Amino acid sequence: MLFKNGERIVFAGDSTTDSGRKRPYGEGLWDGVGNGYVRNIDSILSVLYPDQRFHITNVGCSGATSGAMLADWEQNVEACHPDWVFVMIGANDVWRQFDEPTLDHSKITPECYRANLEAVCERTIGKVKGMFIMSPFYMEANNADPMKMRMVEYAGIAREVAEKYGATWIDLQPAFDEHLQYRYPAYISWDRVHPNWVGSMIITREILKVIGADPLY
Amino acid sequence: MLFKNGERIVFAGDSTTDSGRKRPYGEGLWDGVGNGYVRNIDSILSVLYPDQRFHITNVGCSGATSGAMLADWEQNVEACHPDWVFVMIGANDVWRQFDEPTLDHSKITPECYRANLEAVCERTIGKVKGMFIMSPFYMEANNADPMKMRMVEYAGIAREVAEKYGATWIDLQPAFDEHLQYRYPAYISWDRVHPNWVGSMIITREILKVIGADPLY
Amino acid sequence: MLFKNGERIVFAGDSTTDSGRKRPYGEGLWDGVGNGYVRNIDSILSVLYPDQRFHITNVGCSGATSGAMLADWEQNVEACHPDWVFVMIGANDVWRQFDEPTLDHSKITPECYRANLEAVCERTIGKVKGMFIMSPFYMEANNADPMKMRMVEYAGIAREVAEKYGATWIDLQPAFDEHLQYRYPAYISWDRVHPNWVGSMIITREILKVIGADPLY
Amino acid sequence: MLFKNGERIVFAGDSTTDSGRKRPYGEGLWDGVGNGYVRNIDSILSVLYPDQRFHITNVGCSGATSGAMLADWEQNVEACHPDWVFVMIGANDVWRQFDEPTLDHSKITPECYRANLEAVCERTIGKVKGMFIMSPFYMEANNADPMKMRMVEYAGIAREVAEKYGATWIDLQPAFDEHLQYRYPAYISWDRVHPNWVGSMIITREILKVIGADPLY
Amino acid sequence: MLFKNGERIVFAGDSTTDSGRKRPYGEGLWDGVGNGYVRNIDSILSVLYPDQRFHITNVGCSGATSGAMLADWEQNVEACHPDWVFVMIGANDVWRQFDEPTLDHSKITPECYRANLEAVCERTIGKVKGMFIMSPFYMEANNADPMKMRMVEYAGIAREVAEKYGATWIDLQPAFDEHLQYRYPAYISWDRVHPNWVGSMIITREILKVIGADPLY
Amino acid sequence: MLFKNGERIVFAGDSTTDSGRKRPYGEGLWDGVGNGYVRNIDSILSVLYPDQRFHITNVGCSGATSGAMLADWEQNVEACHPDWVFVMIGANDVWRQFDEPTLDHSKITPECYRANLEAVCERTIGKVKGMFIMSPFYMEANNADPMKMRMVEYAGIAREVAEKYGATWIDLQPAFDEHLQYRYPAYISWDRVHPNWVGSMIITREILKVIGADPLY
Amino acid sequence: MLFKNGERIVFAGDSTTDSGRKRPYGEGLWDGVGNGYVRNIDSILSVLYPDQRFHITNVGCSGATSGAMLADWEQNVEACHPDWVFVMIGANDVWRQFDEPTLDHSKITPECYRANLEAVCERTIGKVKGMFIMSPFYMEANNADPMKMRMVEYAGIAREVAEKYGATWIDLQPAFDEHLQYRYPAYISWDRVHPNWVGSMIITREILKVIGADPLY
Amino acid sequence: MLFKNGERIVFAGDSTTDSGRKRPYGEGLWDGVGNGYVRNIDSILSVLYPDQRFHITNVGCSGATSGAMLADWEQNVEACHPDWVFVMIGANDVWRQFDEPTLDHSKITPECYRANLEAVCERTIGKVKGMFIMSPFYMEANNADPMKMRMVEYAGIAREVAEKYGATWIDLQPAFDEHLQYRYPAYISWDRVHPNWVGSMIITREILKVIGADPLY
Repeated sequence: MLFKNGERIVFAGDSTTDSGRKRPYGEGLWDGVGNGYVRNIDSILSVLYPDQRFHITNVGCSGATSGAMLADWEQNVEACHPDWVFVMIGANDVWRQFDEPTLDHSKITPECYRANLEAVCERTIGKVKGMFIMSPFYMEANNADPMKMRMVEYAGIAREVAEKYGATWIDLQPAFDEHLQYRYPAYISWDRVHPNWVGSMIITREILKVIGADPLY
Repeated sequence: MLFKNGERIVFAGDSTTDSGRKRPYGEGLWDGVGNGYVRNIDSILSVLYPDQRFHITNVGCSGATSGAMLADWEQNVEACHPDWVFVMIGANDVWRQFDEPTLDHSKITPECYRANLEAVCERTIGKVKGMFIMSPFYMEANNADPMKMRMVEYAGIAREVAEKYGATWIDLQPAFDEHLQYRYPAYISWDRVHPNWVGSMIITREILKVIGADPLY
Repeated sequence: MLFKNGERIVFAGDSTTDSGRKRPYGEGLWDGVGNGYVRNIDSILSVLYPDQRFHITNVGCSGATSGAMLADWEQNVEACHPDWVFVMIGANDVWRQFDEPTLDHSKITPECYRANLEAVCERTIGKVKGMFIMSPFYMEANNADPMKMRMVEYAGIAREVAEKYGATWIDLQPAFDEHLQYRYPAYISWDRVHPNWVGSMIITREILKVIGADPLY
Repeated sequence: MLFKNGERIVFAGDSTTDSGRKRPYGEGLWDGVGNGYVRNIDSILSVLYPDQRFHITNVGCSGATSGAMLADWEQNVEACHPDWVFVMIGANDVWRQFDEPTLDHSKITPECYRANLEAVCERTIGKVKGMFIMSPFYMEANNADPMKMRMVEYAGIAREVAEKYGATWIDLQPAFDEHLQYRYPAYISWDRVHPNWVGSMIITREILKVIGADPLY
Repeated sequence: MLFKNGERIVFAGDSTTDSGRKRPYGEGLWDGVGNGYVRNIDSILSVLYPDQRFHITNVGCSGATSGAMLADWEQNVEACHPDWVFVMIGANDVWRQFDEPTLDHSKITPECYRANLEAVCERTIGKVKGMFIMSPFYMEANNADPMKMRMVEYAGIAREVAEKYGATWIDLQPAFDEHLQYRYPAYISWDRVHPNWVGSMIITREILKVIGADPLY
Repeated sequence: MLFKNGERIVFAGDSTTDSGRKRPYGEGLWDGVGNGYVRNIDSILSVLYPDQRFHITNVGCSGATSGAMLADWEQNVEACHPDWVFVMIGANDVWRQFDEPTLDHSKITPECYRANLEAVCERTIGKVKGMFIMSPFYMEANNADPMKMRMVEYAGIAREVAEKYGATWIDLQPAFDEHLQYRYPAYISWDRVHPNWVGSMIITREILKVIGADPLY
Repeated sequence: MLFKNGERIVFAGDSTTDSGRKRPYGEGLWDGVGNGYVRNIDSILSVLYPDQRFHITNVGCSGATSGAMLADWEQNVEACHPDWVFVMIGANDVWRQFDEPTLDHSKITPECYRANLEAVCERTIGKVKGMFIMSPFYMEANNADPMKMRMVEYAGIAREVAEKYGATWIDLQPAFDEHLQYRYPAYISWDRVHPNWVGSMIITREILKVIGADPLY
Repeated sequence: MLFKNGERIVFAGDSTTDSGRKRPYGEGLWDGVGNGYVRNIDSILSVLYPDQRFHITNVGCSGATSGAMLADWEQNVEACHPDWVFVMIGANDVWRQFDEPTLDHSKITPECYRANLEAVCERTIGKVKGMFIMSPFYMEANNADPMKMRMVEYAGIAREVAEKYGATWIDLQPAFDEHLQYRYPAYISWDRVHPNWVGSMIITREILKVIGADPLY
């Protein structure tokens, strides 16, 4: 198990991370960590290690692109002085290219996405015990789907950035792809972008594997 | 793993089970199963067994005592023709004795609690593949606390009823007691009765053990 | 142009037709016909033929399957004594098979779908000047997508029923498929089922073609 | 067809244009362009030319007079760097003279109206590929009605300004007048100023004619 | 002054009378009589005759046609055992012919209007000390306006019914017409049907004349 | 009749004047002048003199004492450049002495009340065609009531200030006192301070007398 | 101290008793007994006698007259099988005569008031350990005030009924009158009928005296 | 009785004091002092001493720790120029250590608590006639409960600070402990921290003892 007693773990990202978290920092009582995968991580770690204190903070922001995340990095992440940082970003960078094709200004190109992610790494690696980059993903089984292809492209960029900076790479797309061999996307998401409680558990599982958590039951 | 493809599993109980489920039956899309432990069970089983269909239905009712649950058994549980039934009841039977001590009519005596639980078993055992009775519990570490003692007494009745009718007994109190060796009750519940997301995961874990679910990660 | 002065035209269907129409009958002032394709039809016909009175009524019901539509046929459609009836149903019959795969009771089989549509035709053909059956459709470009395939199968049933009873067949799927050669589904629908204002205009165009409306401009 | 791939078209005006558009710029998903004639233009162009990208932005402001529009021109229109600009203003300039006759300060005189429109043209003509001035209109059939006469006077000023600056003139009043030969004003507007969905389609038709759009069906 | 101490006066009609009155009977404290002309009558009579008790009840119903008023006559009017009855009805009978021209079922023909008014008189004259029929009116100066003409036609029917049954006729149209020589309709009504506070005072003045009230100041 | 065509009349005061007026200036459409006596004045003058324009503005502020009114005099009154000003203030100055006797800071002494009123007169007399000071009043019949006595004392101060500066004095207390010979205070006010619609008409009558309005009917 | 362990005490009355109590019976957690004098009684007795169980139930109904109270006596009071009953009624019987003088049907005459109270006594005395009749009261110092006089008249009737049936009489008017020697009515009530928290404590004190409660501090 | 006519008494603290008080200062009409123990003090003193003016102000702030109270001391307390100050703080300082154990930054250590309280005393003692420090308390009977122990530790610090500065010490914990010998915590509080109306009366009693109030009844 990677985390040690008293460490602070910050989760940054978009609406999939946010999930209704408390402002300005998603932590503490009354569902402060939101209602998505961070809630699952928080509750499972609490159940597994009641004798340890893990200070988990959700700073995901609904609608955020990699650019918006970078712009708020100081206030949202650095101000927390985290020991561990998780980042899952890029879904909105890609989505806007497909659902608002006529609006140029709301898009983030691959180059820009890479630059944003690298800027985040530059500012973070070395100051934290570890950084995790989770792939942006798309809950679509058809690999020839243009938005799926684009998302995979961006995930590839994220993986390259992770490797360049030595961040831990968590590839979520294969986990979803495997699930979608059996279930239709509508079962885990109403728009193939926002996971419901089943989709959130898939993310949860991948994170727990990577951090080496003990078995829950 | 106990459940087979296509089977229907019904969870009956009070607010801890209910957790904002959909009416009249807590199932299906948009958090239909509510936001508590049933959501956890539903999402973990879905993640583990995407090739299986488990029809999970939450019929918990906030505020219900064992008497209220019995009164609605036909409409809430039998109408579902479940293969498996989970029951967790008794917290309100006990609580009203302590938070409304001057009001006689809102209380359920031990005898009445036993009779209600037995009536539920009589109508159910034999018609389902299995019935699980989960202990009512109280998130209080002090075993000399009078409401804790009363809750344990009711849990004992529930265990005796389970044994008499051959229902599977799931004892939740020890799981909470162990957690409370490390954390204060306020961490998992604002009133020691309603579990928050951490408390819900403790229940989840005990259920997953009993049904023999595969490891999540 | 098919419709004559003073005739009543009723549109039945699910949420795509409903679009927030007035209850009990979707007609008259203040967006009574809802905010979807029926609004477009109503406004374009009004602009084209201000000297004619077309009594347009929207009786679409959000969430309706073919079974629900049949159950309300007397109250919603027959009570209107329509001259012309448009039906677009089946999306929910198919969708529930994919987004709630574990819940058996919310699904409509192909046989049941055919029977429901036939029952509606039996009760209507001969009493109206014309009946139009519009295909259920799915805003997905990938023809190998399982829900797309299922929707096409149901559309095929609808076409067979239309032919059997001499109803006019309006095939919407090709119209959407052509659009999706250029635009991604998310541009015209957030869930590939509910058309936004662009998707509604695609439906509008197909209907206007079939009824032989004069050019708008 | 006047517009070319990738061009940006901005619609400025009052509540008839606004129609509940998104802030600060009326564009993009979820009815961003509002619920009036701009929605019609946007959806019909999208249906006709799915292979082209027209960046349509609605910057109409409910209640705006020509003075208010001028005051916000930089922020609302110039900041968009439009290729094409549509302006429809003047209804409130006239209306306040009739519904608030005792309040001097809320009125815009003909001279002021002309000056405001000219100022807008001065700042815009030459920087855009084309500017369209649509007449303010009044949904009243009686040409001797004093507010109708006043509106026609202001429309005349608008036409003169359009001619002076070489903007394209779109005269909406005749389109409404023709419709009102058959239908009473209350059918297309509750107050003769705000068009409902039928009235919006009349505006839509005139714009589509002027820009040379292909037939819809 | 017509009314005597202790008498009950009931005002029946549509939204112009209703004006947000209390249910089921518009009387008593807290603006029980609504916010329109009945409020003015009630307050002026109270100021003039504090030593007299006039039991004023508003039973106007927003949206009511003459048919709806007749249907509720027993419950709304007869149950009050009034000494004096005021009726102002017909605006909706006429309006629906103009704002919903394509919907046949929402209209009341002149014959039907006459019959409804006569039925009301039959049931009332002889049982009350006096009945007043106020003309339906339209706040439109143009006498050639088709809805104005239609309203005047219905007002003529109302006058004939009043004469036939010996009810007192109060002609409101001339009062409004005179005002409209100076002010535009939008000044006293947003839709030419619902009077604002100025329009309500015009009605008030006509009623006060007819009942012979003392000067207010 | 005192007012001439085109003149502006401003009403300043507390909640009795305010009555829900529009902000920042209580004028214009949609009940802009509020729902109290100013509405009555506005509507009766409009009915009497449709050929004249009286620009009536309500700047009453709920809860205002004479001190608060003075503090906002520039913004609320002077900015309007009124021809005529009406002031009715003092009720809250007195009331706070009786309903919050233990709170010193919310009270205005007689000296302070006089000074505030004089300051208002100093700044206004000479710049307007006329200023009216209406007495604060209390809807209580018993002249020995301490709050009635206090209110009469403050009214006396107001009268003295009016005389000193040549403002027109409008004494409302006698008008209410006369009414209260016949009716109990609860009939015209729920707290003896805020007039209901009957109480508002009493104020209306006194103002109409003073300005020499023609008879309404 | 009059009450014994386990006894049930029911408070009947109007809004002064009701004070927002829970429905159908005002008891138990979360301010079930409302926010008025019953809350004070309940909390003081709980503080004084934590070792005793007094089952206190508030069945006051806002707006109730003696007639309404009688009509609901079975459901509200008898269904509780109380040991002790408190009644405070009559304020609305009197008030309606003053605030709605023109509405005959909302008034309760002295004879009717007496009859209602007697009917309540007939049905209750003998079945309970004790019945308390509290005087209706009016927070007005002036004994010549007509509503005060009327209230005192009704209080006199209540006292006579109490004496006739052997109920305990609690005269609240003198307690209020004494307080009003020092404070103005507006200090303890906004309308002289509904006591605020200070007024509620005056009632509380009188009840505690009568039941012989031990000193609080 | 300690307080003299005209003196001002300010109550500072957290949510137990706040109880929904008015902002910025909790005083005056309409439950300005909130709905908790300050309301009880205010109403009982008013009933006992109607001839005296005690200016009672509630400046409690929900959620406040000793640090937050200190930060607002100038604005909340000193600006009032109180004669007497009551302080009850520390519950949140302790609670956060138990319900948010993983969040370091929301906690106040014993040293910090002491320093905050001392800072408040430094600034206050000498400028007021008297200062009262009430113990933070926990409605838990079990003295071995860790949060109870911690609260008692903080109460001890508060007592030491009181003694050091000569403030009057009011120990609330024993009063609650005695009550809890008979009643379970859930009877007086849903979370053992926020007292309900019974719990508020226990605090009330202790304050009344200390200030030497006359008997209420």
